[in-house]
Order: sequence, then C-alpha cells, then structure tokens
Amino acid sequence: MPEVQSQNTVGLVESSTFLFDQPLALACGETLNAYELAYETYGKLNSTGDNAILVCHALSGTHHLAGYYSEDDPKPGWWENLVGPGKVIDTNRFFVVGVNNLGGCHGSTGPTTINPDTDKPYGPDFPMVTVTDWVESQNRLTTKLGIEQWAAVIGGSLGGMQVLQWSIDYPERLRHAIVIAASSKLTAQNIAFNEVARQAIRTDPDFHDGHYYEHNTIPEKGLRIARMLGHLTYLSDDIMAEKFGRDLREDTINFDYGIEFQVESYLRHQADRFVGTFDANTYLLMTKALDYFDPATEAGSSLSAVLSKACADFFVLSFTGDWRFSPQRSHEIVKALHDNDLNVSYAEIESHHGHDAFLLALPQYLSVFGTYMDRITSECTK
Amino acid sequence: MPEVQSQNTVGLVESSTFLFDQPLALACGETLNAYELAYETYGKLNSTGDNAILVCHALSGTHHLAGYYSEDDPKPGWWENLVGPGKVIDTNRFFVVGVNNLGGCHGSTGPTTINPDTDKPYGPDFPMVTVTDWVESQNRLTTKLGIEQWAAVIGGSLGGMQVLQWSIDYPERLRHAIVIAASSKLTAQNIAFNEVARQAIRTDPDFHDGHYYEHNTIPEKGLRIARMLGHLTYLSDDIMAEKFGRDLREDTINFDYGIEFQVESYLRHQADRFVGTFDANTYLLMTKALDYFDPATEAGSSLSAVLSKACADFFVLSFTGDWRFSPQRSHEIVKALHDNDLNVSYAEIESHHGHDAFLLALPQYLSVFGTYMDRITSECTK
Repeated sequence: MPEVQSQNTVGLVESSTFLFDQPLALACGETLNAYELAYETYGKLNSTGDNAILVCHALSGTHHLAGYYSEDDPKPGWWENLVGPGKVIDTNRFFVVGVNNLGGCHGSTGPTTINPDTDKPYGPDFPMVTVTDWVESQNRLTTKLGIEQWAAVIGGSLGGMQVLQWSIDYPERLRHAIVIAASSKLTAQNIAFNEVARQAIRTDPDFHDGHYYEHNTIPEKGLRIARMLGHLTYLSDDIMAEKFGRDLREDTINFDYGIEFQVESYLRHQADRFVGTFDANTYLLMTKALDYFDPATEAGSSLSAVLSKACADFFVLSFTGDWRFSPQRSHEIVKALHDNDLNVSYAEIESHHGHDAFLLALPQYLSVFGTYMDRITSECTK
Repeated sequence: MPEVQSQNTVGLVESSTFLFDQPLALACGETLNAYELAYETYGKLNSTGDNAILVCHALSGTHHLAGYYSEDDPKPGWWENLVGPGKVIDTNRFFVVGVNNLGGCHGSTGPTTINPDTDKPYGPDFPMVTVTDWVESQNRLTTKLGIEQWAAVIGGSLGGMQVLQWSIDYPERLRHAIVIAASSKLTAQNIAFNEVARQAIRTDPDFHDGHYYEHNTIPEKGLRIARMLGHLTYLSDDIMAEKFGRDLREDTINFDYGIEFQVESYLRHQADRFVGTFDANTYLLMTKALDYFDPATEAGSSLSAVLSKACADFFVLSFTGDWRFSPQRSHEIVKALHDNDLNVSYAEIESHHGHDAFLLALPQYLSVFGTYMDRITSECTK
C-alpha cells in the first residue's frame, strides 16, 4: 500500500492561496501593495472555531506540513512526523494551518514572483522581510480564515521566533505559544554562519547581484555551500560520529578530491537536493530575518519587558544536543516568561541529534509534546 | 621603540632553505625526486646538541614562528606569544626550529613551486602529502641540521598530529612530545567542515581545476569562504559573544547585504588578509592531510597499539572551549599513552577562546607549559 493511503497520514492535500490587497508596511520601511500567501489546512475547524493551530516554518520550510501532493509523491510534508491523524498535532482534533512566509519560494509572494511594477521577478528588489512582518501577514491570514483566536501557534527554530513575536504583537489572538528549539535572538556565532552562507551565494558569479533569473542561471555553487554548511550545523558532532564516523565510501583512500568519506557524500547529496528546489534570494532573505530577530530591542534590550505584553500559556522545548539553538537560549526565554508570571512549561529533550531534532519522531519529544497537546484539546469545544 | 627591538622578541630573523635530492616516496604512492624545505632557527644549539626543539605548524602556519623580517615588519611570527627570549619556549635556552611543511606556500616545495618536469607550477599536480610524509621530510631536515635527537617536538592542532606521528615513526629521535589542542583523528564533523571549505574553493570558477596560476586568477571567492568558515570554527560561541555579541557596525540596521553586525566585519577582514597570502592548492592539501590522519589504522584501528612504538615523555594540552579539537580528543590520546605506561602529563586549560587558544598568551597555559619546559631545560647540558 502506498504511504499516502496509510491511516497515519493526512493523505492527499492541496495548497491554497489568498490574495491580500491591503498594503503591508514592512519593518524595513518599504511597503508591499499586494501579496499572496500560500497555505495548507488539515482537519476541520470546529463549530466555535477554538481548535485552530498555526504552524510557522523555519529557514527552508514551507506551508506543506504533512501529506502528499499526489499518489506517487515520494516525500510527505516536512512535519509529517508530528502532524496527522492520531499524531502529536492531531488532525482529528485540530484544524491545522501551515503558511509559506512572505519572501518564500513555494507559493507566497517572494523574489521569484513577478513584480507588477516591472513585469519581471522581484529578485533582489524584493524587500527585506522580518519576523514581525511575517506575524503581521499571518495575522491577516488568520482573519481571512475566519479564526478569532488560535488554540496554539507552534514553530521550531525560526518558526519558534515567529511564535514569540505572535505572543508579543497579538497576545489575545493565541491561547498557547509553543516555542521549539528557538532563541530570542541569534548569537554572534549564528550570525557568522549565516554570513558565510550569504557570502557563498552572493559571490557566486551566477548570482548576478540577485538578477540571475534574467540571466537564466542559478547561483548553484553558492547555494550548495550554504546548504552543506547548514546541514553540517544542524547535526551534532555526536550524531555525525554515529551516522558517518570516518567511514570511507570505498574500501580504500584514493588520495584525490573525489568523495573519500561517507560524510562528504551526505553533504553533496543534501546540496544536490536543495539546489533544484530552493531559491537563493529567498535563502538570503530568510537568513537576514534570523539575524535581525531580537524583539527585546523595542523594550530597552529587556526580553522580560517586551514579553510583558504576552498573555498566552507557553510551552518551551529544547534539545540537549542542539548547539545552534542550545538549551541555554530556551532558558533565557523561560526566565523572561517567569519574570512575567506567565504559565510556562519547559521540556529539555535528551537528544544527540542536534538542531534537526525538532523535526524527528523522538519518543521523549513526542511524549511530552503530546501530553501538552492533550491539555489544549481538553480546552477546545467538543 | 619599534617592537622588533624589544627585549622580548628574537628580533630580526631570516629564513633558510635546504635542498633535498634524495627521492621521497609519499604515502599516496607518488615520489618527489627532489624538494626544498624552508625553515627558521632561533637560539643556539649547545655543545652536545641536546637542546633542540622542533615546532610543527598547523593548517595555515609557516616556519616563521617568531621575530620580524624587517624593521618595519608589522607582524611577528605566528607563535611570538610563546617563542622568544625568556618566553615559554625560551630561545635563550633552546635551539628552536620551525619548518614549512611540504606542500606549503611559504618557501617549501609545494603547488606554487615550478615543477622541473614541466617548467610550470605544480599546481594541482603536486602530490597529496600526509602527516607521515611531513614527519619523514622533517626527519631528513633533522639530520641535515646535525641534530641527533630533539629535546622536544611541539605542535598545536595539525602540528600536534605531526608530534604524535613523530613519536610513532622516530621514537628514539625525540625525548619529549608536546601535543596541543590536537586529535588522533578528525571527527566526521571536522571532515565535513573541511569538505565545505574545499568545495567552496574547488567550485570557484577562478579555480580552473587548480591551474589558476596559468590563468592569472586566484580562487579568491572560495578561499574567502574557506577562511571565514575556518575562523568561525576556531572561535567558541562564548568568545564570539564576548568579542562581538550582536553589536552593529553602525548605529542602525540598514536592511541590506552590507555589513550590519561587527562579527560580519571581522569575518570579511580575516578573509581579506588571507586571500593575498595563502595559496588555495596548499589550503586544499592541508585539509586533506588533516582528514587522512589516523595513525591507528596501521595497528587495527587501535591507537594504544600504534603508540606502543612511542618512548618519548608526553605533555598533552587541551582547552575547555575548543569544540573543533575538544578535550575529549586529548583524553583519548592520554588514555592510549597510559595504556603503554608512558610518562604523560596532561593539562586541560580553562578557556573560552575556542581552538585558537593554543596561539594565545593565556596565563594558565603559559604557566603549566612553562613549568614543563623548565623540566626539559633541567635535562639539557648547561
């Protein structure tokens, strides 16, 4: 039986798009006069509309959280491990919404979209978007979908940053904020990794200052470096040792620049997969949104002060082996929430999988996350 | 007073070169019929020749350990912090030798050297060199210098790997092996970082499969990425937070791809400095030597078994904040040495400086290292 027909998945899904024709003033000072957001929904909104869940995506994620686009689709949505019937984010109980962020390359308006003013793709002229802008656009989507208040807004990594911003900008519009493997701001090291990735893309001669669509090129070399570097840092040293160690691809060392070690093969494979599916200008935008995120700046650099606006119940999760968004970053968030006497649950999941852990079906993770989701269920109208 | 005239430095120094005309059979299967090694010496060899110290360099190091090349030389040798009169590696007491590794780009035969068979630079045809090959070539240099036995062979990082290999291949020829911030083999994560750097260089259109000298280009874009990535991983998350944090270069965010954060400025500056002084083919060779190093393979993957050949006294140092060559890697070395009942001192230096710590004048480091060097002094002829 094909995976798509299993009991365990939402099965065949379709994306939708909403057009927004009210101008959106962005943090960078520019305005988008109109834009589209691509989204997907799973499950049913109940009669009182109190079982809706928004999932925000990370750097290279999309609105396609779960299910398949066709009977022979080889890969389900990126959070298939957690979203589906009977799963942690149970589509039998919740109305789950995924949305592609503005600036993305999977259906929402972004650099690859035709700019109505020029009849050419926006390319590098697409304005810089921030987490705040995303939350504002998602807030408008919320209204369009007829949802008064989310039962929960959930996200991992850059997705978790959006959850934090939601709780600050629209505190009344979410009952629960679930912040996974996130941070209230990037460290210098994280900014540095992003900058190296950006430099790789921007110095690729095929980048043409971002106008590569017109040159019929893609900055493939730079995008490959960016993706390899990303993957490398999303895994922990330990899991890489376990997965690859010093295993050779062939029995012997060849003393050349072909693939010698299995880990080199893994990286090149990940790069191959990415290059055909992800837009370089979008990648740049997403890394900048990560760098800029620091909600405390609007409250004198005090995370506690800015989170005084929040009123949601919070569930914060981190993973011990995550060195890009370490548990310490989550502790800082939890402390700031406690400073405001908010209801906070915190779970630190034992895992040696690195930052990518939030995507995986790790038993302890599923268990504590599922328990929290049961609590949300109990608050929803039957 | 210019720094070069201070009491604290070896002052003005000159490099020398030895020509070796005995063929050198390399681990990769190729043979170098003749080659030169550039080296520098500081201090005086005593009458019995028992006060000689060899310092092996790391990835981007050279034979220029200390001192200045001219009165207005802006920068001393790379280990000026530790090598000099009255310093840890005291040139008043020891005859200290630095050597540029084969395959290097600072005077020893390498990719930039004219290949006598073709009258063109070796370029990518320069054979792959390994740590074993370096030790063999350094051993020949030892003989040329009239040194029977080194009082100590010392090195950090890739230099420490050479020290380990020295203790295995020429156990009688060194009394002390000082292995700093090193590893008996790279982890998958380290290989992966090297591979990303190599891909950045090798996919740069100006690389021309390594024949860039003939094209009057240098793969500057790739080399910049490699260097930025290197620097980023030689520092710890903590020291980057302390040095740069989220400090902006200007007072405000510009929402563009110029330099926003100080850490971006730092990375670009490091890249600028490197590109004019280091050869890309050498960089590739050095990273491969790192990847391949695994002396245990010749003894059924047992580090203890291969170190049974060693008879030196060992001093192993690691740094707590070093995540590229973590203390755990040094523990593995120490354990294998203990398995062989060798004399081992081990120091784990508290530091949040990352891998680069071994280059710095950290008080605890200088103190324990200096104490060990005093012991070596006491064994030398007055």
